[in-house]
Amino acid sequence: MKTYLYNDSIGSCELLDSMGSDLDIVNAARVSFNVEHVEISTKDEKLINYLYKNKHTSPFEHCVLKFRCVVPLFVARQHMRHRTWSYNEVSRRYTSEELEFYTPETFRPQHKSNRQASEDTDTNPIIRSTPGTNLTWTTKASDSVLKHTRKSVRLFNTLLESGVCREQARMVLPQNMYCKYIATTNLHNCLKFIHLRNKKDSQWEIRVLAQAMEATIKDLFPTTWKAHCAVMEGRTK
Amino acid sequence: MKTYLYNDSIGSCELLDSMGSDLDIVNAARVSFNVEHVEISTKDEKLINYLYKNKHTSPFEHCVLKFRCVVPLFVARQHMRHRTWSYNEVSRRYTSEELEFYTPETFRPQHKSNRQASEDTDTNPIIRSTPGTNLTWTTKASDSVLKHTRKSVRLFNTLLESGVCREQARMVLPQNMYCKYIATTNLHNCLKFIHLRNKKDSQWEIRVLAQAMEATIKDLFPTTWKAHCAVMEGRTK
Amino acid sequence: MKTYLYNDSIGSCELLDSMGSDLDIVNAARVSFNVEHVEISTKDEKLINYLYKNKHTSPFEHCVLKFRCVVPLFVARQHMRHRTWSYNEVSRRYTSEELEFYTPETFRPQHKSNRQASEDTDTNPIIRSTPGTNLTWTTKASDSVLKHTRKSVRLFNTLLESGVCREQARMVLPQNMYCKYIATTNLHNCLKFIHLRNKKDSQWEIRVLAQAMEATIKDLFPTTWKAHCAVMEGRTK
Amino acid sequence: MKTYLYNDSIGSCELLDSMGSDLDIVNAARVSFNVEHVEISTKDEKLINYLYKNKHTSPFEHCVLKFRCVVPLFVARQHMRHRTWSYNEVSRRYTSEELEFYTPETFRPQHKSNRQASEDTDTNPIIRSTPGTNLTWTTKASDSVLKHTRKSVRLFNTLLESGVCREQARMVLPQNMYCKYIATTNLHNCLKFIHLRNKKDSQWEIRVLAQAMEATIKDLFPTTWKAHCAVMEGRTK
Repeated sequence: MKTYLYNDSIGSCELLDSMGSDLDIVNAARVSFNVEHVEISTKDEKLINYLYKNKHTSPFEHCVLKFRCVVPLFVARQHMRHRTWSYNEVSRRYTSEELEFYTPETFRPQHKSNRQASEDTDTNPIIRSTPGTNLTWTTKASDSVLKHTRKSVRLFNTLLESGVCREQARMVLPQNMYCKYIATTNLHNCLKFIHLRNKKDSQWEIRVLAQAMEATIKDLFPTTWKAHCAVMEGRTK
Repeated sequence: MKTYLYNDSIGSCELLDSMGSDLDIVNAARVSFNVEHVEISTKDEKLINYLYKNKHTSPFEHCVLKFRCVVPLFVARQHMRHRTWSYNEVSRRYTSEELEFYTPETFRPQHKSNRQASEDTDTNPIIRSTPGTNLTWTTKASDSVLKHTRKSVRLFNTLLESGVCREQARMVLPQNMYCKYIATTNLHNCLKFIHLRNKKDSQWEIRVLAQAMEATIKDLFPTTWKAHCAVMEGRTK
Repeated sequence: MKTYLYNDSIGSCELLDSMGSDLDIVNAARVSFNVEHVEISTKDEKLINYLYKNKHTSPFEHCVLKFRCVVPLFVARQHMRHRTWSYNEVSRRYTSEELEFYTPETFRPQHKSNRQASEDTDTNPIIRSTPGTNLTWTTKASDSVLKHTRKSVRLFNTLLESGVCREQARMVLPQNMYCKYIATTNLHNCLKFIHLRNKKDSQWEIRVLAQAMEATIKDLFPTTWKAHCAVMEGRTK
Repeated sequence: MKTYLYNDSIGSCELLDSMGSDLDIVNAARVSFNVEHVEISTKDEKLINYLYKNKHTSPFEHCVLKFRCVVPLFVARQHMRHRTWSYNEVSRRYTSEELEFYTPETFRPQHKSNRQASEDTDTNPIIRSTPGTNLTWTTKASDSVLKHTRKSVRLFNTLLESGVCREQARMVLPQNMYCKYIATTNLHNCLKFIHLRNKKDSQWEIRVLAQAMEATIKDLFPTTWKAHCAVMEGRTK
């Protein structure tokens, strides 16, 4: 199983455990037809396609995926808006250790027309590989963010040393702080997450998380993954 | 893994698949403390006890159980009120085959004071083993229910032969009809179901379903099961 | 507010209470844009259309509908598979009074190709208005169902008089028994229910329930209803 | 209806809308007993007490509360872990206006034994009213946090002026940033939130949010509120 890494080698999405296979989806669907298969056939592949395309979602709910995610706080917040997942997160009320921050080397410019987006998230998904059109400010921006992050951590430590409780001191930490958590959901809701978060108008930092999960599904549920791709590409004849 | 059978050898609750162990619960809980264990220790057992007793439920959500249930319709209806489970059921709109019915040999009398219950569901959990205080009516009742069930099936078949659609014809089938479905949930919600449905004032027919699930948890998650028993018995010092 | 009645004047779906309006949807959506309106404008209508079409569902979750439903058991079972609703139902463990049954005067024939459907559910949504192609068996079928229902109730009462507990005696009642319950959900999930259950391949008896809810939404949330119709008709330019 | 304000006069929790009353809970519960009341009686009060104490939660799900919350980011994150609520939040991808930050004048010391808590959250719920045992560092801490917040906002604005997209620039903003959102849930899940978040070991900043909601419930559902208090105080005879 591949572990996905963010471009700074810190952020990641790793499969910890899973339950079920494409065959289990077919058998769950066929419980309503009172039949059970032991090996996947061309007919089964067609059934999975039919179920996915027509939003008969319940058979996909009997398969489960469990991930360990390390993502910037603003990504964790978007992820945790998905209410069908189960989460357990490192609490910053409890520990002040192993603090890590997302400090990209380049930045994306504000989108010209879409108030809510940045440019090029689709054609240049990996930022590091794009030198940027405006290297000067990029370097400065990168330096400023790094310096600011370091200052924030210093203030955090000073507050702790002064006796301020962790649960309050953490308020000075910036939102590029990495959050580490375990996230479990069923295959249907994982695909729904991917569908909503691996979109052109989603922020790149959450798209890479969705893409890591999609790669896992490709490995574990290849037939379902094909059905999903067909729907995404509008090739659903 | 034990498969539970109703006393008529038809109804059953069978584990199809599962994900996770007691150790995974501990590791999910400790993600907030930034530590991970590879083997369960006495300290881990105490942690599971503490989590269960204090309703820190999220670590139990990363373990999953998948069952095949065959239960009378009135039990299936109570089960499916639990909205955190995933269900796939044999559709009686689609097939008229393999119809089976729950026809107990003995019956429980109406409870003297509790309008909503029957007598002795606790002391005599297996009805068949109790001859009943009033054998005469019991036999008659049993016969009447059996005859009525047969007549209902005959009418159902006559309607189908006359050309009536299955989705309407099924309305004449009585509520002792067995429902067959796959049901998946996480460990937290499975324990919640057991807690609510293996109670003194629950109907015996759903208590046996809850007890079958409890037996499965005892096998798969022995430490969690002990914590659960301690809470149920009020022995939670 | 209209109360919908089944063609036998017993089944019904009645709005009991509601919260919110089209304007509240707009304001919930605009909280992300930090603006609030007091009167609905053409721009707001466009926004509702845009949100609905693009599945930005959260703003529709702050509006709520509460219904009293009286539907045949097999319809109640399909309804209660929707896990985002809240339900409270008359318990047949508790009371044996006010038993009512769905006994249609005509029936639909089995669909020629779709194993799971009946003919004509779309062109003849109200069965009573169609004389049926085969009046002879229809009358007989109708009579048989009515007689069977009466016999079932008689057996039920005999069992109760013999001392059998209500929770077991109810198993002889047929599935055309009416269920009475309160059902509450938010506007998003109500529209999802309508979308899934007012389809050509849904059973007529649940389609009329979905249509009753749709009529209520037309009254209470006219702009949302228009957006919903546009999506249903594929007119979503 | 009271609007709650944090001690810095910025944070708040305001009731926007609601549905239902104590009487509606009683009627929802009694649908299972086939009776309906029009005025609340002593018997009804006893029923609400019984339902609440015995966790018959479904009747409380037909009442709804809708709030506008303005809370520090670390409180919003804890709130949004509650997956039965509906949320709509001001997006910092979309707007960089009206940024506000929680900058308390005094701080709580780290708890001596509980790694996850601060001292005195219970006896001194309103921080401002406690001069603090160590005024010197408190003032300095307060100043440092304020200065750090201002610097963070300046860097944020510089990044925006340099052309960095909002969705990335926001990562330098500290976690005392106020989040503004609409949050809707039913009465059962609101009480569950209060039960879990107005505890001794909860962080003061979320306890005041839970307390604001509790005050609203006291006004709108006085009988339910009394039942809730009885359970909280263990006075549930």
